[in-house]
Amino acid sequence: MLKGHQSWIFQNKPIIISSSAVGGPFEAEGALSEDFDILHQDIWVGQDSFEKAEKVMLEQACQKAIDKANLKKEDIQFLLSGDLMNQIISSSFAARTLGIPFLGIFGACSSSMQGLALAAQLVNSGAANYVVASASSHNSSVEKQFRYPTEYGAQKPPTSQWTVTGAGASVVAKEGKGPRVTSATIGRVIDMGLSDPFNMGAAMAPAAVETIEAHFRDLNIEPDYYDLIATGDLGLVGHQIAADLLKEHGVIIPEKILVDCGLMIYKKDQPVIAGGSGCACSATVTYGHFMNRMNSGELKKILVVATGALLSPLSYQQKESIPCVAHAVSIEM
Amino acid sequence: MLKGHQSWIFQNKPIIISSSAVGGPFEAEGALSEDFDILHQDIWVGQDSFEKAEKVMLEQACQKAIDKANLKKEDIQFLLSGDLMNQIISSSFAARTLGIPFLGIFGACSSSMQGLALAAQLVNSGAANYVVASASSHNSSVEKQFRYPTEYGAQKPPTSQWTVTGAGASVVAKEGKGPRVTSATIGRVIDMGLSDPFNMGAAMAPAAVETIEAHFRDLNIEPDYYDLIATGDLGLVGHQIAADLLKEHGVIIPEKILVDCGLMIYKKDQPVIAGGSGCACSATVTYGHFMNRMNSGELKKILVVATGALLSPLSYQQKESIPCVAHAVSIEM
Repeated sequence: MLKGHQSWIFQNKPIIISSSAVGGPFEAEGALSEDFDILHQDIWVGQDSFEKAEKVMLEQACQKAIDKANLKKEDIQFLLSGDLMNQIISSSFAARTLGIPFLGIFGACSSSMQGLALAAQLVNSGAANYVVASASSHNSSVEKQFRYPTEYGAQKPPTSQWTVTGAGASVVAKEGKGPRVTSATIGRVIDMGLSDPFNMGAAMAPAAVETIEAHFRDLNIEPDYYDLIATGDLGLVGHQIAADLLKEHGVIIPEKILVDCGLMIYKKDQPVIAGGSGCACSATVTYGHFMNRMNSGELKKILVVATGALLSPLSYQQKESIPCVAHAVSIEM
Repeated sequence: MLKGHQSWIFQNKPIIISSSAVGGPFEAEGALSEDFDILHQDIWVGQDSFEKAEKVMLEQACQKAIDKANLKKEDIQFLLSGDLMNQIISSSFAARTLGIPFLGIFGACSSSMQGLALAAQLVNSGAANYVVASASSHNSSVEKQFRYPTEYGAQKPPTSQWTVTGAGASVVAKEGKGPRVTSATIGRVIDMGLSDPFNMGAAMAPAAVETIEAHFRDLNIEPDYYDLIATGDLGLVGHQIAADLLKEHGVIIPEKILVDCGLMIYKKDQPVIAGGSGCACSATVTYGHFMNRMNSGELKKILVVATGALLSPLSYQQKESIPCVAHAVSIEM
């Protein structure tokens, strides 16, 4: 690998042989509802806590992806999973249920693509035949932990986003049919000094731009290589900042190509303020919507740039700014 | 890779070209104080919070390891790091300071060997030339988050352990001199139904045993292959349970060979109850003490089995039991 490079080019092009998306009631009313495999009308998913509901959705997403690949849990060698809960309990407890050797990851909302990048790396290098990559979030468990319990009905500023309730998973394999993971770029932690947990999009936008630029530099390609470049969850505010920053840096990406999962998942009339967010935002849009559009032949080459805000409630209370990261994965049909 | 296997055998034997250990005042009085590169007499490390103190120690450990390898931060392609803080802020904020492309991991106290296993995997497969693997914990930040602030002076039962204050880091490289990482076994999440956060050792012991057995099975070797098999932080109670369980399962490991980092790091007269714990326990003992003994030629082959309790204060409050995991890394001179 070349010095200064932060991208992996996968010579063996690991294949996403199956994927799945699970959502909650708000996602069922969203713009991409048809791309979900399982939709719950009950935000509790029959559990007695929001955290347990999130865990069940993550288990369902993993199991569904494994089923769709006509495999059994025992065929999967490693489970890579991350979420926003303290000590990633959704992932750890789902790993307990699934019984697959487990590598816990944390990149906040970038966990979805961090997991896919590492899964592809393991399969590409022959360190695994089948790996599941997954991520989850739950609106009520996340709001309770990072801001206020949803039951309080607290008001939110116009920059704030709506955490997606759901989970996404994929089975990455050495052989089979499906879109192929061709490269991945691992991001640096970028912090422009923003500290408002109700404006994550603005904090994360520079990290997305940094990773997109590194991706094109390392791979020596131009933005028009892709049919779609999708950031994870920048929302209205962050998306505009990212678009402006890219233009400033001379990276010309047509408006139609540069999209954001957080701006796609809900309908215009849903009260999601600046758009969707959470690990499940990029995970469900990628593993549901994008995979369907790739498998149908509509999209040939996409770059998913999942963004994560690496703050904790405690780092915020200690008046720290918000360090952010973005990981990009290139998927081609 | 064979179906059902959960181990990686590294054909190119990535090299730990340097490593470092940073500790606090309690570690400075411990049994292995001479193996630390930096020891702080001030538990605050000159910072205004315990969390910031932990972050500084992690930064120091990474920088020290990079310095000892005669490298610069820019030479390191990826930083793998994990800790016990919510949203692994110690690692994320240290990654911000260091500016190295960052892969956050979480396996509680198993993070040390999860990081080393993945670092070796990346170097072995040619996905990186230089990777830093690191982990940290701080007695006061961890106690405050998981149990009670240390200032309360709360009493503890005899099964409880003492979280190590410190950080450990290593530089894993394709070429150079030093101990080599020859294989790694990624653990499954094991939960025997224990739920007492003051008795982590007992909860983690079965996970350690499961991973040790998987390691021998996958590699088709016997325990006498190693000069030392070191669990991470089972402490007095967990160590005895692990030894008993191994015997029960017919895995015969001589008493002298089966050791625990948590039982080595402090002196007998230090009030650490059942022994040391925390991510920094296995990280500092491995990257300080064990590496010194390997580089001096005293130890030729060791297996470090870092154990992690994947609970959160919230999962405990919701009356969940404690899922545990262990990851093993084989290091040979």
